[in-house]
Parts: sequence; C-alpha cells; structure tokens
Amino acid sequence: MVTQKVAFQGEPGAYGEMATLSQFPKAELLPAKSFQIVFQSLESGAVDFAVIPIENSIEGSVNETYDLLLNTNMVVCGEVYQRIRHNLIINPGADNSKIKSAYSHPQALAQCRVNLQKRNLEPIPTYDTAGAVKMIKEKKLNDAAAIASKRAADLYGMEIWEENIEDKTNNYTRFLVISKVQSEPTGNDGTSLIFSVKHVPGALYGILAEFASRGINLTKIESRPTKEVPWEYYFYVDFDGHRNDKQIRDLIRVLKKKTMFIKVLGSYKRGEFH
Amino acid sequence: MVTQKVAFQGEPGAYGEMATLSQFPKAELLPAKSFQIVFQSLESGAVDFAVIPIENSIEGSVNETYDLLLNTNMVVCGEVYQRIRHNLIINPGADNSKIKSAYSHPQALAQCRVNLQKRNLEPIPTYDTAGAVKMIKEKKLNDAAAIASKRAADLYGMEIWEENIEDKTNNYTRFLVISKVQSEPTGNDGTSLIFSVKHVPGALYGILAEFASRGINLTKIESRPTKEVPWEYYFYVDFDGHRNDKQIRDLIRVLKKKTMFIKVLGSYKRGEFH
Repeated sequence: MVTQKVAFQGEPGAYGEMATLSQFPKAELLPAKSFQIVFQSLESGAVDFAVIPIENSIEGSVNETYDLLLNTNMVVCGEVYQRIRHNLIINPGADNSKIKSAYSHPQALAQCRVNLQKRNLEPIPTYDTAGAVKMIKEKKLNDAAAIASKRAADLYGMEIWEENIEDKTNNYTRFLVISKVQSEPTGNDGTSLIFSVKHVPGALYGILAEFASRGINLTKIESRPTKEVPWEYYFYVDFDGHRNDKQIRDLIRVLKKKTMFIKVLGSYKRGEFH
Repeated sequence: MVTQKVAFQGEPGAYGEMATLSQFPKAELLPAKSFQIVFQSLESGAVDFAVIPIENSIEGSVNETYDLLLNTNMVVCGEVYQRIRHNLIINPGADNSKIKSAYSHPQALAQCRVNLQKRNLEPIPTYDTAGAVKMIKEKKLNDAAAIASKRAADLYGMEIWEENIEDKTNNYTRFLVISKVQSEPTGNDGTSLIFSVKHVPGALYGILAEFASRGINLTKIESRPTKEVPWEYYFYVDFDGHRNDKQIRDLIRVLKKKTMFIKVLGSYKRGEFH
C-alpha cells in the first residue's frame, strides 16, 4: 500500500497537525512554513492532500486561506473540527515563580489574554504555537513559557505548567481537507461555493432566495473583497447537501445564470468534533 | 470655541491620522497604542470622537474593531474613505543600493509583496507603519527602508525613495467616526446595525427579506462569531438610509421581533473619498 502524503501549516505539534492526524492517522505528514507553500505542495503533486484552517469559533474566518481557495484548482473534499486546548509549557525543572513571559502565535496569546494578565506574564508573539515551544527549549529560556498543545509539549519533551489556560472554553477550529479528487456522497454532506453578484440593490438577496426556496440550509456566509474593484465582494457560502444531489444540481444551474462569477469548491462528509 | 479632541490608533503619520484630519482638521488629535485604548478614551470622556478603521478594500474587514463595536455604548456618527498610498522611506542621504530590508505593519508589507520581491527587500513586521519610520530614524538604520505614508516621511524629516509602491492601486480603507452623539439626517446617509438569529434554516434569509421587500440597499454584510456558542454569528449590516427615515424605523421595529439580538450602531453621512 502506498503511504498518503498530507501537508499542513506549522511545526510538528501544531493544532493543524492534530487535525491532520485525526483524518489521516497513517499518512506521511509534511509541515509547511506558510499556507502558500501548503497549496503549492498540493498543486505540484508533492502531496496528495492538504489540511487548512478556515475558521475558528472565537476569532472567526482565516482570511488568507479563504483567498487561496479562490485561486486554486484543487477541490474541498473533507472537513475536521479540532478542539483547541492551550497549555502553559515550560522547560523541565524550570522554576514557575521565575516565569515572566509567554511566547506563542498572536491568536493563541489573544485567546489566553485574561489568564496571562492574572499570572502577570508578558505576551510575546511568535509565528507558530509549537514553534514557540521549540524555541524556548533550544534557547533554554527558563524565565519564559510557551502556549501550545499538549502534543507539542510531549514532542519536545517539555513540562506542562498548567493545562487548558484558554479564556473561553468553546474553542474549536474548523479545517478543510483539499485534494485533486472529489468526494462521493455519504448522506451527511456539506458543499462550499464562491460567487459574486452585480453591485445592485437586492442582488445578494436574489441569490439567497434560491437557497431558501429549495429549503437548502446555509451554514455559513462570508464575504471577501475582490481586490480589483473596491467594495465588491466574493461571497463564500457553505450549505447542507452534496453537489450530486438533484436539488443542489438544480440550484447550481440557476446560480450560474444569476451570478457574475461562481466556483463550486467541493462537497465533503461533514466533520466530526475532535 | 472649545477644541475637539479625537483619538485614533497608531503613531503620528499613520493612515488613521490622515483619515482623522480629513474629518477634524482643527481638532486636537490623540494617538493611541491600541484600538482598546481608543474606545476607552472615548467611553471615559477623555476625547469627544474616535476614528477607527473597519474595512480595507484589499484585506477585508478589521475583526478587532468589529468586535469592539459590539460591546461599546458609543454610536457610529460618521464615515471616511482614506486612499492608501505606500511609500518606501529611507534616512536622508542613505545609499539606495545598500537597502536590504523593509520595516512596516504586516498588512502594508503584504500589500507591497510583489514590489518588495522585485527589489529583493526582506519584509520585517512592526506594529505600525509610521512607527517603522520613527524606528529606522531613531536607530539610524541606513540599510533599511520603512513603508508608510508620505505624511510620515515629512513628519520625521525622512526621504522618499519611491512613491506608490503598493501592488494594487485600488487601496482604500473605510473608517468610522464614533462618539456619544447621534448624527442628524443629511439626505445621503448610511446606517449600521448588528443582529443575531436562531440557528435554523432560512433565518438569515428571513431577515434579508425585510430589507429587500422595502427596497433598502444593503451595502455590506459581515459575520463575526458570538464567541459563546461555536458557529453562531452576529451579522453586521450596512445599508442606505437614516434611522429617522420612516421605512428604516419600520424595518427596525420588525427586526426587533424577528431577531434574537439587535443593536443599531448609528446613522451617518456617507463618506467621501480622500
């Protein structure tokens, strides 16, 4: 059997790696420095799949991955919900009372702001959560902590000072799996597509009416600037159903006539919570 | 006459200062380190107005200011569109051929990415555009440039190596003016409000139908996570008309019944382009 290769963004121990492992427990994982490199690895055929974050339940949409989905010729074929639990991680044997700062990705720092203030720890931004753990280990910083997953602490042989230090407990990130190959219907599917409409009153409403009149459940709507004409948007919608379903095929046929631009990103089995 | 006080985020020379000056040319301006401090200055009465960025025509919405608008008891009373023109700024007399890096806010660096690659300049993130100019001046960095407004170059007595180095020319930021006091109708007004709906099929569509049936032109719709229940959203909508107009009053009365939560942020004279 050929081992599948899957790219994710971040260092080993990143939340993206955990989401990837939940879908591809036996695959060969390729960590990438940036989302752009993740997409390039997939498009060049260096990997078979990629797993990208699209939305966090506290911070909202990930603008960069939304923009990259517009321009790729790959399809969305899966969905994963990853629970985010942040931990204060220190060097083994470091004295808690001497810790003065906490290194992590700016979003992780923001999600632990109240807890960091209570402990009087200065937040210091880094490019990655697991990368912060690696850094305080390599530099032997005994007066600093890192904020990252339990997995990152284990991988680098570090100590957990305190678990679950996020301020809000309902912290999940939704990841999408992308590849060259479409997914078959499972009976519990979602579909994502992008469209743009003329800048006239009621244009967006006219499109949403096509979903409502068919009883199709929209689960998310997001707008991103076209970057060409100011205040013109691409709308990204997620809804229940598979692109092979008759009523979704009808919907897409009508939308092709009523939109200026439409791109079906793909259909996928709805994700489970991990 | 009492001089008005107005807060903005960033250092003198920041684009936020330019937007503020276009609305309040004679006011006393108070630069603030963060958006949170901007809101606190207004709420405490330390300033009369604040000017905050809400959306950029390339990068999209500013999540942090959207979230702060949800929790403030201040109202939106004005709108400004500020043209963003980035410049490569260096120390006077510095040798162009020796410049190796460019310091600026991550969004400004992203907006000049292609141009920086052409010149082989390494992008280095800082917290503010004008702050980067101040920094390369104070540290006398002759092998580095900063990316910021022409005004920042003038204020710090620096040299412009090249003007308008942004990759896309349609670069505008939309700012909102906030204060304690509502604005009177001018005949060319916009209104902003926030609502949430039950997580049932067609709920969002049912709200948009109220706008469409009255011929009210939605100019923007944005969703932000509630942060309490995963995948439940607050919707932020901007539309034409003033809250004192009869049909907008009717709309708001109906929306109060059909939404779980509604907050009218305010009505304001539509902004001009600067």
